Amino acid sequence: MVESEKYSLSLGIFAPCADRFVTGGYHEELTLEKMIQKAASVEGASGLELDYPFMRPAADNPAILEKLLKDNGLQLCTIEIDHYSGNKWKYGALTSEDKSIRKEAVALAKRGMDLAVELKANQINIWLGHDGYDYPMEVDYSAYWNRTIDGIREIAEHRDDCRVCLEYKLKEPRVHSLMGTVGDTLVIANTIGLKNVGVNIDTGHAFIAFENLGNSMALCHHFDKLFYLHWNDNCRDWDHDMIVGSIHLWETLEALYWLNRLGYKGWHSLDIYPYRQNAVEAAAESIRSLKKLMAIAKSLDEKKLNSLRQSNDVTGILRYMREMTIK
Amino acid sequence: MVESEKYSLSLGIFAPCADRFVTGGYHEELTLEKMIQKAASVEGASGLELDYPFMRPAADNPAILEKLLKDNGLQLCTIEIDHYSGNKWKYGALTSEDKSIRKEAVALAKRGMDLAVELKANQINIWLGHDGYDYPMEVDYSAYWNRTIDGIREIAEHRDDCRVCLEYKLKEPRVHSLMGTVGDTLVIANTIGLKNVGVNIDTGHAFIAFENLGNSMALCHHFDKLFYLHWNDNCRDWDHDMIVGSIHLWETLEALYWLNRLGYKGWHSLDIYPYRQNAVEAAAESIRSLKKLMAIAKSLDEKKLNSLRQSNDVTGILRYMREMTIK
Amino acid sequence: MVESEKYSLSLGIFAPCADRFVTGGYHEELTLEKMIQKAASVEGASGLELDYPFMRPAADNPAILEKLLKDNGLQLCTIEIDHYSGNKWKYGALTSEDKSIRKEAVALAKRGMDLAVELKANQINIWLGHDGYDYPMEVDYSAYWNRTIDGIREIAEHRDDCRVCLEYKLKEPRVHSLMGTVGDTLVIANTIGLKNVGVNIDTGHAFIAFENLGNSMALCHHFDKLFYLHWNDNCRDWDHDMIVGSIHLWETLEALYWLNRLGYKGWHSLDIYPYRQNAVEAAAESIRSLKKLMAIAKSLDEKKLNSLRQSNDVTGILRYMREMTIK
Amino acid sequence: MVESEKYSLSLGIFAPCADRFVTGGYHEELTLEKMIQKAASVEGASGLELDYPFMRPAADNPAILEKLLKDNGLQLCTIEIDHYSGNKWKYGALTSEDKSIRKEAVALAKRGMDLAVELKANQINIWLGHDGYDYPMEVDYSAYWNRTIDGIREIAEHRDDCRVCLEYKLKEPRVHSLMGTVGDTLVIANTIGLKNVGVNIDTGHAFIAFENLGNSMALCHHFDKLFYLHWNDNCRDWDHDMIVGSIHLWETLEALYWLNRLGYKGWHSLDIYPYRQNAVEAAAESIRSLKKLMAIAKSLDEKKLNSLRQSNDVTGILRYMREMTIK
Repeated sequence: MVESEKYSLSLGIFAPCADRFVTGGYHEELTLEKMIQKAASVEGASGLELDYPFMRPAADNPAILEKLLKDNGLQLCTIEIDHYSGNKWKYGALTSEDKSIRKEAVALAKRGMDLAVELKANQINIWLGHDGYDYPMEVDYSAYWNRTIDGIREIAEHRDDCRVCLEYKLKEPRVHSLMGTVGDTLVIANTIGLKNVGVNIDTGHAFIAFENLGNSMALCHHFDKLFYLHWNDNCRDWDHDMIVGSIHLWETLEALYWLNRLGYKGWHSLDIYPYRQNAVEAAAESIRSLKKLMAIAKSLDEKKLNSLRQSNDVTGILRYMREMTIK
Repeated sequence: MVESEKYSLSLGIFAPCADRFVTGGYHEELTLEKMIQKAASVEGASGLELDYPFMRPAADNPAILEKLLKDNGLQLCTIEIDHYSGNKWKYGALTSEDKSIRKEAVALAKRGMDLAVELKANQINIWLGHDGYDYPMEVDYSAYWNRTIDGIREIAEHRDDCRVCLEYKLKEPRVHSLMGTVGDTLVIANTIGLKNVGVNIDTGHAFIAFENLGNSMALCHHFDKLFYLHWNDNCRDWDHDMIVGSIHLWETLEALYWLNRLGYKGWHSLDIYPYRQNAVEAAAESIRSLKKLMAIAKSLDEKKLNSLRQSNDVTGILRYMREMTIK
Repeated sequence: MVESEKYSLSLGIFAPCADRFVTGGYHEELTLEKMIQKAASVEGASGLELDYPFMRPAADNPAILEKLLKDNGLQLCTIEIDHYSGNKWKYGALTSEDKSIRKEAVALAKRGMDLAVELKANQINIWLGHDGYDYPMEVDYSAYWNRTIDGIREIAEHRDDCRVCLEYKLKEPRVHSLMGTVGDTLVIANTIGLKNVGVNIDTGHAFIAFENLGNSMALCHHFDKLFYLHWNDNCRDWDHDMIVGSIHLWETLEALYWLNRLGYKGWHSLDIYPYRQNAVEAAAESIRSLKKLMAIAKSLDEKKLNSLRQSNDVTGILRYMREMTIK
Repeated sequence: MVESEKYSLSLGIFAPCADRFVTGGYHEELTLEKMIQKAASVEGASGLELDYPFMRPAADNPAILEKLLKDNGLQLCTIEIDHYSGNKWKYGALTSEDKSIRKEAVALAKRGMDLAVELKANQINIWLGHDGYDYPMEVDYSAYWNRTIDGIREIAEHRDDCRVCLEYKLKEPRVHSLMGTVGDTLVIANTIGLKNVGVNIDTGHAFIAFENLGNSMALCHHFDKLFYLHWNDNCRDWDHDMIVGSIHLWETLEALYWLNRLGYKGWHSLDIYPYRQNAVEAAAESIRSLKKLMAIAKSLDEKKLNSLRQSNDVTGILRYMREMTIK
């Protein structure tokens, strides 16, 4: 069995991991160089997801970035468009009532696409953290959906050699996000109807929407829209960005079974937030878990599973899964 | 101001309302005639939603039903296809591994459409309660989505003078339903692409999926898919089918504001489950709440709201809503 | 290593498992004899929890019951007082506004205690399913707490050779139960202050209250109140009564680690609800999971865990747990 | 009717309100003087809750603080002990594995008590944000409960002229807090058994634990432990610290009814987090809502409510509440 999965890391893993109580963060702030070096030291990781714009001066000079990646033996997997860390986005990026903000949001994504292509990742990720609402009656939903669809279409039409991954999330930082579920996202992607628009399933976001990972993956695949993955875990209550497999062992294993079955060839990118943990260790343990579980997933007897499913023998399935997994 | 909303009742409101502990139900079992008489006694209701197949002998003789409705001054608003109350559906209707069950499920819906047209409701509702899964690894999601889409398409193609409303629900009786959110349902409806396939937003189901009613309504409307409504309430945790407005006052008011704004002309059907309450009173109080809140919704100053929204003045919106609503 | 855990079964596992949609249940109704025979056929189970009053004629004749248990090689572990399956309890048992209902509820529990002692279980379980509320403003909470404390005290004072286990649950069948969490229950037990009043931790109920099993067990143990256990699983969203370990593998393992550490000697009773599964198989698989995980729990190196905890090395703990558990 | 409620403000309302995405905060950082001036400008507020230690130099000089309060016409209502904003508390304050941290946590609270008495508030609030755990197997629960009880006892014994309010919260910043529910907190307070140890019900925290405010208030009152209130709102899913009454209108009204009935004489302190709102307006609107709803609560006919409750007429109660509240 050849192990062919590619594991990558979100740069944010090595950030201070602030929250609203410890606003200075739980870890010290590092330079971009140091963060990338840390990423390179994570066993099993070969890719990196970077936010655009990056810290200066890298943001203004892709060559710097290219060298940094190369020197550290890492490949750029995706450019994450930063539509969320600045206060200016607080009332939304693509949905803002302020037309100039919407315009800026689109322009930023386009520049990110150019960079992604230049750096051979050919993929951006869009997560619209502030495009939502907090209170009843706060926003004009119709206008928001129109703006979201128009904005993403305009971005995607910029160039067809770069994939646009849409990352949904039910909530946070808004009480309600507009694009909250896999269904919402497929509605948008299908409505736009461009080949380069697809879905990034952040596993923790799927959990908080009470989705099952395998199911969401299969649904996206049905429309050729399973583009990208963010791995992490939580208790289905909030996007805690925990170490992979630390809570949802069975659902994580099932997801890997489905990815294998669906022939997913994209990156397995970690998007954990190790507030109180050693970031390198937390990432490495996440990859070890994924590898271990993928090996189990690949060893499952599909014929046996099919037969058990056809006879609705769920107890047989659970027993088989336990015997294949637990020591 | 002319009051033009049409209120209808699910027949189940007058059922014994059993649960898994009080399996005999909290109320005595009534004949179909008595149930319809009770429905007719609810102030403000002019329509009735009936399950197909009905109790015998009505199920075999639409004329009986027509007379019952007429005698009680009620109009049939929708035929609810019963894909869930028999043990035979327990592993799914449209998604069952058993092809004969799937065939039966489609046939049942087609017969229901014929009846709905004959009785001038021209609308059926499909809620696929058992089409889902309980455990990780239990089902083949890809097959399930294919079967769901194919099944609904086959039903809808039966005749184009009858609307097919799809009612989503996140869970119950399965731990996970397949068609769980407004997004899922629009993906299916849009993929099928038939004019007579749309969405029934059960407000309680929307709440448990952490949707905002107004938002889900606006999104359905964007695709001309807002066909029907089931009104009830809960605490966003489970489909308790409570009296309308008893928990989510502001979200219910906002929903009515959006329905008014979107020009919704369909039925406002109650789908409450008054386990421990007097059913007639619970339904009447729900309609009184809806009417009261709709009057407030209609009196809102759209210009003022727009202006507050454009300046992101959510506090101003909350104050205005409170002043317009609270004594 | 001697395996000393005692596994028992709730009789309800072999009931039709009705819900509000399939009111006739997913399985056929069996006689008491057949149910007990089925229980006896579950590999690994040596105990049975029975509801009082039982089906007639057993309810009126403990000798019949004793013989049934003996003939099937099962030991009675607990008498569950049935304060919930009759419609008469619908507005509460110990908290009912109707004094005669409250009196009846207390008397029923006392008779159950006598029977539990006669049949050498010396333990009853009280779950007050209807003692709660659905709507804001519905009940007088102060009166409800007083009645709950007074009622349980009166029951417990009936005889001190029988333990009274209090089983909390956040909700269902009421939208809110009065005694919803481990904390609520300890407040009551400690206030009553009798040695024979303690807690039954239903693991699924703990999950829906967002408790961690190990923590709730340790807290009960702190007050010598960890009397009894009901095992099952769910997704923290609702009391689905699923097969043990099928969702919360790590939390179940952690619970067994704590039980071992705390020296718990009571019964491990299954309280699953196998709606769509073969009941005997579902119970057997639950016990197999518990045994497998208990063996792992007992093999953990306490010294190593302590050392990792003292250095706040949670990643190290997760790695160790994974290596000890996953193949 | 004399309006006697005292409204106060948490200083944090006027903080930048950072979150993990907008780490610099949604508002500009103000000096302590400016924050207090803002607080003073909130119509209806007469009290202020201050964190200890305060910003320098005020932290070292109570006289500065006293003058600031006096100059702005505000009364100190409580000293909030800051056991959470520094990175040093990240593995817990009273429960830390590091004994010196535990000692520092106790000492800090004692100094806060001295200050509270000096400034005539005679009350501190303790919220143990980091005293919890994120992952299964992470901590030694038994040790944690012992340390929590011992630590709070030691603090409370410091002086009996200062009340110690315990503020529970189910989670955040930890995935699980140790002291998560009203029940947990009463267990601790009752076990310590000192008159000056009681409960602060943060209404949003109660909501996320699926508590009903009125019920939690009545339960605390039963043990003379209802010391203090933090008002805010959310959707029961997370501690969003929203404007009071903006989501849970009926539960907020019910809470005020119970406070009135229980004779609560303490402060009504706002603990909202107006990320995207004008802080002064958000606070003022919260107080306006509370006043409006308290007036309705006081006008309710207790005799009528009792009579409806005695006949289990919940529909009658809902109708009455709606008629008394909605225009």
